[in-house]
Amino acid sequence: MNIRIVGTGKPKSNFIVEGVEQYRKWLGAFGRVDLEYFPLGGTTAREREQVKEREGRRYLKAADSQDKILLLDAQGEQYSSQEFARMLEKWQNIGVSNLSFFVGGPLGFSNEVLSKGWQKLSLSRMTFTHEMAVLILLEQLFRAFAILGNRPYHY
Amino acid sequence: MNIRIVGTGKPKSNFIVEGVEQYRKWLGAFGRVDLEYFPLGGTTAREREQVKEREGRRYLKAADSQDKILLLDAQGEQYSSQEFARMLEKWQNIGVSNLSFFVGGPLGFSNEVLSKGWQKLSLSRMTFTHEMAVLILLEQLFRAFAILGNRPYHY
Repeated sequence: MNIRIVGTGKPKSNFIVEGVEQYRKWLGAFGRVDLEYFPLGGTTAREREQVKEREGRRYLKAADSQDKILLLDAQGEQYSSQEFARMLEKWQNIGVSNLSFFVGGPLGFSNEVLSKGWQKLSLSRMTFTHEMAVLILLEQLFRAFAILGNRPYHY
Repeated sequence: MNIRIVGTGKPKSNFIVEGVEQYRKWLGAFGRVDLEYFPLGGTTAREREQVKEREGRRYLKAADSQDKILLLDAQGEQYSSQEFARMLEKWQNIGVSNLSFFVGGPLGFSNEVLSKGWQKLSLSRMTFTHEMAVLILLEQLFRAFAILGNRPYHY
């Protein structure tokens, strides 16, 4: 299964870049992992809505109808790591070959994106930096494949 | 407010060590941050219960009656970052000067630790590596102080 993570704003912190690379490498054993980032827009109050709309159009354009798309969203459903793994297994079993996670930027998703009916996934009730969200998602994907493959993963 | 994080198993991944250092430094503006790690024990099935008991005794010994102690536990309560910040504020207001977070190791806490009546905090329904939990906790502590101080924190 190929995995694509699409975010807004490339991770800047060195430790995140390193962690993302580590998990991307480890995940390589299970399929291709692509990371794409849209540029960050302005964040002054006046610009916020416009920027969100513009970012939203980029996500809509990036959405391939062949892909299973998930939005990382605070309002989404929370799953345990076991449930997340079983969900991945189910998608594998029904032949999903491309899985896209849209992470969103600091402003969140536009209404147009939110109303597309894509499944929404929440990592926590807490708010994470968007770069931390990418790292956590990759770690959970690796954990899920480890669970499904019955591989030890103690860290 | 001084913060102490007590875990089992020192973070090994380079990116975690770096991230922990970054947030520890940033948090230094708000108080002292101490990180203590107990050594990891064996993890064969036969040893698990014994190791958990032994680790448990270390946590009990590390618990200062003057401290406000919280356990990071999957069965704990989840808070939003805003709620977590308000909780910190409340503790500051009632004069809590030392806050201890017990993170636990890969085996979780012993029953003796779990039954002490300490507040239990869950970061997510997902399971994280214990080193990732330390990093996320530090990030949330920094976020909380940023929220309380009305400081911008966009990442």
